[in-house]
Amino acid sequence: MKFFNVKTVQETLSIIEEHFGPVGKTCRIPAADAVGMVLAEDVISAEQVPPFSRSTVDGYAVRATDTFGATESLPAFLEITGTIEMGKAAELYLDEGHAQYIPTGGMMPPGADSVVMIEHVEEVGELLNVFRQIAPGENVIRAGDDVNRGELVIAAGHRLRPQDLGVLASVGKTEISVYGKPVVAVLSTGDEIVPAEVQQLAPGEVRDINSITIAAAARQFGAEVMYGGVVKDDYDSFYKKASQLYQEADFLLLSGGSSVGTRDFTVQVLEALGEPGVLVHGVSIKPGKPTIIAKAGAKPVMGLPGHPASALIVFHLFGIPILEKLSGERTVKTDLRLEARITRNVASAVGRSDYIRVKIEQRPDGLWAEPVFGKSGLISTLVASDGMVEIPANQEGIREGEIVKVQLFR
Amino acid sequence: MKFFNVKTVQETLSIIEEHFGPVGKTCRIPAADAVGMVLAEDVISAEQVPPFSRSTVDGYAVRATDTFGATESLPAFLEITGTIEMGKAAELYLDEGHAQYIPTGGMMPPGADSVVMIEHVEEVGELLNVFRQIAPGENVIRAGDDVNRGELVIAAGHRLRPQDLGVLASVGKTEISVYGKPVVAVLSTGDEIVPAEVQQLAPGEVRDINSITIAAAARQFGAEVMYGGVVKDDYDSFYKKASQLYQEADFLLLSGGSSVGTRDFTVQVLEALGEPGVLVHGVSIKPGKPTIIAKAGAKPVMGLPGHPASALIVFHLFGIPILEKLSGERTVKTDLRLEARITRNVASAVGRSDYIRVKIEQRPDGLWAEPVFGKSGLISTLVASDGMVEIPANQEGIREGEIVKVQLFR
Repeated sequence: MKFFNVKTVQETLSIIEEHFGPVGKTCRIPAADAVGMVLAEDVISAEQVPPFSRSTVDGYAVRATDTFGATESLPAFLEITGTIEMGKAAELYLDEGHAQYIPTGGMMPPGADSVVMIEHVEEVGELLNVFRQIAPGENVIRAGDDVNRGELVIAAGHRLRPQDLGVLASVGKTEISVYGKPVVAVLSTGDEIVPAEVQQLAPGEVRDINSITIAAAARQFGAEVMYGGVVKDDYDSFYKKASQLYQEADFLLLSGGSSVGTRDFTVQVLEALGEPGVLVHGVSIKPGKPTIIAKAGAKPVMGLPGHPASALIVFHLFGIPILEKLSGERTVKTDLRLEARITRNVASAVGRSDYIRVKIEQRPDGLWAEPVFGKSGLISTLVASDGMVEIPANQEGIREGEIVKVQLFR
Repeated sequence: MKFFNVKTVQETLSIIEEHFGPVGKTCRIPAADAVGMVLAEDVISAEQVPPFSRSTVDGYAVRATDTFGATESLPAFLEITGTIEMGKAAELYLDEGHAQYIPTGGMMPPGADSVVMIEHVEEVGELLNVFRQIAPGENVIRAGDDVNRGELVIAAGHRLRPQDLGVLASVGKTEISVYGKPVVAVLSTGDEIVPAEVQQLAPGEVRDINSITIAAAARQFGAEVMYGGVVKDDYDSFYKKASQLYQEADFLLLSGGSSVGTRDFTVQVLEALGEPGVLVHGVSIKPGKPTIIAKAGAKPVMGLPGHPASALIVFHLFGIPILEKLSGERTVKTDLRLEARITRNVASAVGRSDYIRVKIEQRPDGLWAEPVFGKSGLISTLVASDGMVEIPANQEGIREGEIVKVQLFR
């Protein structure tokens, strides 16, 4: 089979970047349920957080100038004029020479500018001995220190982490607009493939692995999944099922097609689903060369290689970036791959990016990546691996001890 | 307040390791739905995967010896005696000097030991010209290469990744026993704390951040969450609510208690919930010193610091390891923290582990970690951060350019 349009990894990623965007559906949900979802609105704070100046310690609210020069041997003497209660307004003005007891989180009284910790004072009746001088603002969080009024709290396109939900809670934003989860449909093809439920295999049959692994990976990365099952290598039934899934889903993943016959069908089906059709027909990687990426209408359709290890590696390389685009994510990604040393020489062909599976080992001198060799048809090689290492297209291989970047499998 | 029992990070982790285990509930679920769950049974394969020897390429099944010495100029000549069909038994015995067409994934015919790729042959009627010699076993996955009969496919205690579900599918294991998700209850305390839903804050009041961030983080790490809401600093109402949640949940997280009054209540409530009571009362870390870990019956109860950034850092340090134990996870963890260089000097006190929030920057010479300074009461510092860096207890600080390990926030 010929690949008319073989692209590099970078070219393929640029094509993904250029062609795909958020699926468009947004919905309003409770912010507390939104971890892992992508925010679809800019959230601007209408108020200050905290709304008032607060103490960060248990101690006495004072004017810092009243403590200047205070030491263990020569304390400052202040008059205790009140006690701040948690969750209550601090209304009593704090005059020069005065101190008011304040608990952690308590509201600073007007007139006070700092808090001296309980450890650094001694109460003698209504008199307070202060044994340490403090600076103005010390042990205080001022109104608006956390979030200012009118500040952009979180921008649209951000995938929400626990702390992001926390800051939304702090400004009273309990309902937010998020992008809906992209719906991914997975369809396996191949005359030899039977659903995993089949207990008695006929000679020549194997169970469907890719539907399960690809669906699970898509779900981990924030998608909802529709299982399309397995279809035989017959253009009409393949097209019919693919077309039906294409209508219902935001992203169609076809898996299988490692034999010439099936690969041909896959391309025909991808072209028949809609314009503009196939964008990438083959990528200069190993494993995973027979990867096909198409666009039918606005929707991505991807033909994954049939070998289970290839399929999951290709999904990590290109399926996840597509999912991120569909999810509305706009964050510029930092390369957060782990660095490790490779435990042995690995040869590679120039002009092709190789992805080798590795197991991470912790040794006294740091992390090492042990290649897990084995044909890409063996799912067990991925089970034994923690991640994958790229040998870039311009390298002839990597030498034992060389530092490599490991993309971890989750 | 005194901490009678301040532990180091390592001591605290050892106490967690020693005291807590799987919540015990297991359930049978479809394997396809089990990504992120922890397997509760050893899965042994009753069969071989693949169940028969298969070709990994499109080509001709042959005996390797028949190709020995074949070159472009002096090809080997074989007789084409059949065609293997995908998904069908290969029944025709392959004799010396013969070849049978075989598609990728097809079943090897008896008598054949290798496959010559279609690219290296030429068909001339029923005659096959083979232009390259191949080795026995070349381009073949043998029966059992992926999984052997009687092999331990995945051991109990393993958190299931997509590829793990794939190998389970390959052996026809579509229903598995997993540990139930631990149920985490989160309860916030403090007279100044009001639920995030409250739109009009009275003077002195702030919204509850920790319930939201801690619940979201627990959910990300595989827990189900019960929100307990907010209770006031009153022993009776605090105990009553905590006790009710303790009955219903597997792991109770109390948040708040940064003022002396609340902290005292928290310890009393933890002790009252059941034996053996408080195991860790204070950890030598910053932020997060007022962390409390208790055990009531078999269940963990944790008192988190009230400051939002401290609470989430402490949850990452100790809450997640507790959740892993409750989940039944038995995998020995590798230290997979990312390495980066710190962008500036950071001072630290010896005898205490400091956790500084950092933003990761990608520079031409690699990853750099930029400290995000700010009081631990500010949730916005975590929003601006990608992870945290530990300055170990035996270090006085870190110098600009030094390599540090970054634990990423998800």
